[in-house]
Amino acid sequence: MENYIARAEKTLARIHELAAISEDADGITRTFGTPAFLRGSALVRGWFEQAGLSTRLDSIGNVRGRLVSPNPAAKTFVIASHIDTVVNAGRFDGPLGVLLGLDLLENLREDQAVLPFHVELIAFSDEEGVRFHTTYLGSKVVAGSFDPDLLPKTDAAGISLAEAIKTMGGNPATLADDAIPADQWLGYFEAHIEQGPVLWEQNIPVALVTAIAGQRRVELTFKGMAGHAGTVPMDMRQDALAGAAELVLAVEKFGLTHKAGLVATVGKLDVRHAASNVIAGEVTCSLDLRSADATRLDAAYEALYAQADAIATRRQLSLHWHLVQHTAPVLCDAGLNALLTTAIADCGYPVVPLVSGAGHDAVPVSTVAPATMLFVRCFKGISHNPLENAELPDIAAALQVSECFLSLLFNQYQSSLSRP
Amino acid sequence: MENYIARAEKTLARIHELAAISEDADGITRTFGTPAFLRGSALVRGWFEQAGLSTRLDSIGNVRGRLVSPNPAAKTFVIASHIDTVVNAGRFDGPLGVLLGLDLLENLREDQAVLPFHVELIAFSDEEGVRFHTTYLGSKVVAGSFDPDLLPKTDAAGISLAEAIKTMGGNPATLADDAIPADQWLGYFEAHIEQGPVLWEQNIPVALVTAIAGQRRVELTFKGMAGHAGTVPMDMRQDALAGAAELVLAVEKFGLTHKAGLVATVGKLDVRHAASNVIAGEVTCSLDLRSADATRLDAAYEALYAQADAIATRRQLSLHWHLVQHTAPVLCDAGLNALLTTAIADCGYPVVPLVSGAGHDAVPVSTVAPATMLFVRCFKGISHNPLENAELPDIAAALQVSECFLSLLFNQYQSSLSRP
Repeated sequence: MENYIARAEKTLARIHELAAISEDADGITRTFGTPAFLRGSALVRGWFEQAGLSTRLDSIGNVRGRLVSPNPAAKTFVIASHIDTVVNAGRFDGPLGVLLGLDLLENLREDQAVLPFHVELIAFSDEEGVRFHTTYLGSKVVAGSFDPDLLPKTDAAGISLAEAIKTMGGNPATLADDAIPADQWLGYFEAHIEQGPVLWEQNIPVALVTAIAGQRRVELTFKGMAGHAGTVPMDMRQDALAGAAELVLAVEKFGLTHKAGLVATVGKLDVRHAASNVIAGEVTCSLDLRSADATRLDAAYEALYAQADAIATRRQLSLHWHLVQHTAPVLCDAGLNALLTTAIADCGYPVVPLVSGAGHDAVPVSTVAPATMLFVRCFKGISHNPLENAELPDIAAALQVSECFLSLLFNQYQSSLSRP
Repeated sequence: MENYIARAEKTLARIHELAAISEDADGITRTFGTPAFLRGSALVRGWFEQAGLSTRLDSIGNVRGRLVSPNPAAKTFVIASHIDTVVNAGRFDGPLGVLLGLDLLENLREDQAVLPFHVELIAFSDEEGVRFHTTYLGSKVVAGSFDPDLLPKTDAAGISLAEAIKTMGGNPATLADDAIPADQWLGYFEAHIEQGPVLWEQNIPVALVTAIAGQRRVELTFKGMAGHAGTVPMDMRQDALAGAAELVLAVEKFGLTHKAGLVATVGKLDVRHAASNVIAGEVTCSLDLRSADATRLDAAYEALYAQADAIATRRQLSLHWHLVQHTAPVLCDAGLNALLTTAIADCGYPVVPLVSGAGHDAVPVSTVAPATMLFVRCFKGISHNPLENAELPDIAAALQVSECFLSLLFNQYQSSLSRP
C-alpha cells in the first residue's frame, strides 16, 4: 500500500498542476477548445509522452496515448476520462480518471510488461458540454457516434464547433477517422469521483458502478396573468409562480416516494419580468429525472406530466411542456463488473454497488464496447465546485484496485487465448 | 353627459399625446428626470399655461399650476397625480389624474369662477420610484417630507439624485421651499385608474377610495446545500428551492384565508447559480403584504415569518429575513369622502368603497392634509402594462363626478365661511 500512496502523491501533484491552468484567474475553468483548455491539453500530452506512450492529438482534441501489444490479433482496451471542466469547477472531475490511467500505463511501461492487447489512454476533450451545450464530443468521436450535424452549432460568441475544431488544429472532415472501429474495442474502464455523498457517508474509499442512470430533462412553462400584487384580490389571481411552486413540491414528493430507484429535481426556476409587486404571469422551470431503470423513468415522466397538467388546469394556467433530453440508462458490462468486484474484494475493501446519477463518457462508449467504472469517494459528495476534493488514501486505493482489475483482465484474456 | 364625453375626448387626446413621448421607441417609459420625461413635462406645462394657470416647474420637477382665490385667508386645495411611469408602462397610470384635473381647472377658468380657496394642479415628477428606487419624490417635496439624505443616492448609471435634479434645472438646496406649508393645505384629491379588476368585474365606472393599504415588503433567503441533481439521494438533500416553494404556497394560502382584508404575494424568486442539473443551494424571494388594517398587517407579517422559520428548521435550511419596506395604512379623510360619496350618488352611479392596494401620492400628502381619491375602471384591471386602458365613457364619468365633488366642496367651504 505504501507504494500506492507514493504513486497517488505523484497523481495528485499532476492533478494540482493541471488545475492551475484556467480561463479565469480565481477558479478552474477549462471549457472545450479555449486557450486555457489547450494549455492544459499540452501539459497532459507532455506527460503521456514522458511516460513512453505513443501519443497523438486527434481531430476533436482528445489526447491519446497507446501501449501496443505484440499480439497481431489484439484489440484495444481503453482507459479514459475527460480534461474539460464546467465553469468554476473542482480539480478532480475528469482529471482524476485520466491521471490515474496515466499512472497505470506508466507502471506497465516501466515493468516492460508484454501486453496481451493494446491499451489506450484517452483524455477526452469534451464531456461537460459547457461551450456548445452538447455533451460527450470527445468520447462520441472515439465511439464513432459523433453527429456531423453538430458542426455548424455555435457557442455564445458565435464561433461554430467546426471553427473551434480548426483552431485546435483538427480537421472537422476527418473526425470519423479517429473512431476506434467497433470490432477493435475490447472494453472500457473509467475511474471518476462519485460526485455524490454515498461513499462519504458510508466511509468507504471506492465503489463499483453497476449502471449509469438514464435521464429525462424537461423545460416547462406555466402561464397565468401578471397583475399588481396590491390590487388583484387573492381569489381573482392566475399566479404562475404558485403553480410552479406546487410542481416543485410535487416533484420532490415523487422523488422521496420512489427514492430507491429515482432522483427528481427542479433546479432552475425563472419568473419572467419578476418584481416584488407583480403577480407572476409566466414561470419557466426545469425538471430533471434520473433512474437506472428505463420503465421507472418513463413512469415518473408520465406521472409528473400528469401532475403538472392537473396543476395548470386547476389554476387556470397554460402549460407548455418540452422534453429537452432523453438518455436511456446504461448498464455496466457484467463481465467487467465481475472482475472489478473481485479486484475490490481482493484489495480488502467492501464492495458497494452504486448507480451513477451523473452522465459519463462511458455512456456513448457503452454503445460499442463493454464498459465499467470505478467511483472514488469525494468530500461530502461535493462536485462542480471549488470545494471538490478526493483524499490521497482514496486515490491510492483507486490505483490499487484499478491495477488489480487490469491484472485480472490480462489473466482472463490470456487464459481465454490459451483455451483450445 | 354629452358635454362630459366631449371633454373626456379632449382629455383622452392629451393622454395619447403624452404617451407618444418615451425613452424607448416601442413602449412608454418616462422615468424621473430623463430626456423623455423632460419632453413630457414640457408638454404638460404648455397645456397648463394654455389653460391660463399660473404655472411653474418646481425644484424636484413637479409641474405646478394655480388658480388663485381673491380670499386673502384662502388655503390651497390640491388636485394631482404623477407623470413619471414604470418601464414599459400603460398610458393612464398617473396622466389620467393630471389631465382630468387640467380639464376641471380649464373649465373653472373659462367659467370665470370666483374661487373660495386656491386650487393647485400638480403633475408630480416621481411616484413610481423606478430610477432611484425610492417612491413619491415629487409629492414628498410638496408635503414637506422629502428626506435630503436621499440626495447622494445614485441611479443605475451612477448619477446621484442631486445631479439629476440639477440637470432638470432644479436646485437641491431649495427643495424645502417648494413645500406647501402644513397650515396652508385645505385638502387633496386624486383621480387614478383602479389598477385592479373589481370595477371591471362589477361593471361600474368609478369608486370611492376609503383607504390606501399599508405594506410590508420582505426580502428573504433560504440557504441549503447545492448538489448534483443526479447524485445526491432524495433524502440527503437540503433543497433551498423546495423550501421557497413551500413558502410561496403558504403565502398564497394565508392570503386566500384572509382574503377579505389582505393580499399576500411572492412575486420575485431567484435561484442562485441555477442550473437544471444542480439542486438549488440558495433562493431569494420577495414577500409583499398589504392591508388597510394595521393590526391585520402586523399579524400576517408575524404569522408568515413563523411559517418561513418553521419551513427552514424542518428542512435544515438557514433563513435570512429582511424587512425592506414598512408603510402604514392611510385612511382617506372622512369629510372629503362624505362629499365624494354624495357626488358619485348625485351623478347616478353606485357607490363602491374600495381599498387601494397600490400606493399613491395621496400617501405622503395624507400626513399633512385631508386626502381622498377617486378610482376609475380600467380594462380587466391590467396596469403597468401596454394593455392598460380606460374607456372614454368612464373618463367622462370621472370628470362628471370630480366636477360635482369640487362644486360640493366650494359650497361647503362657502357655507362654513358664512357661518357666524
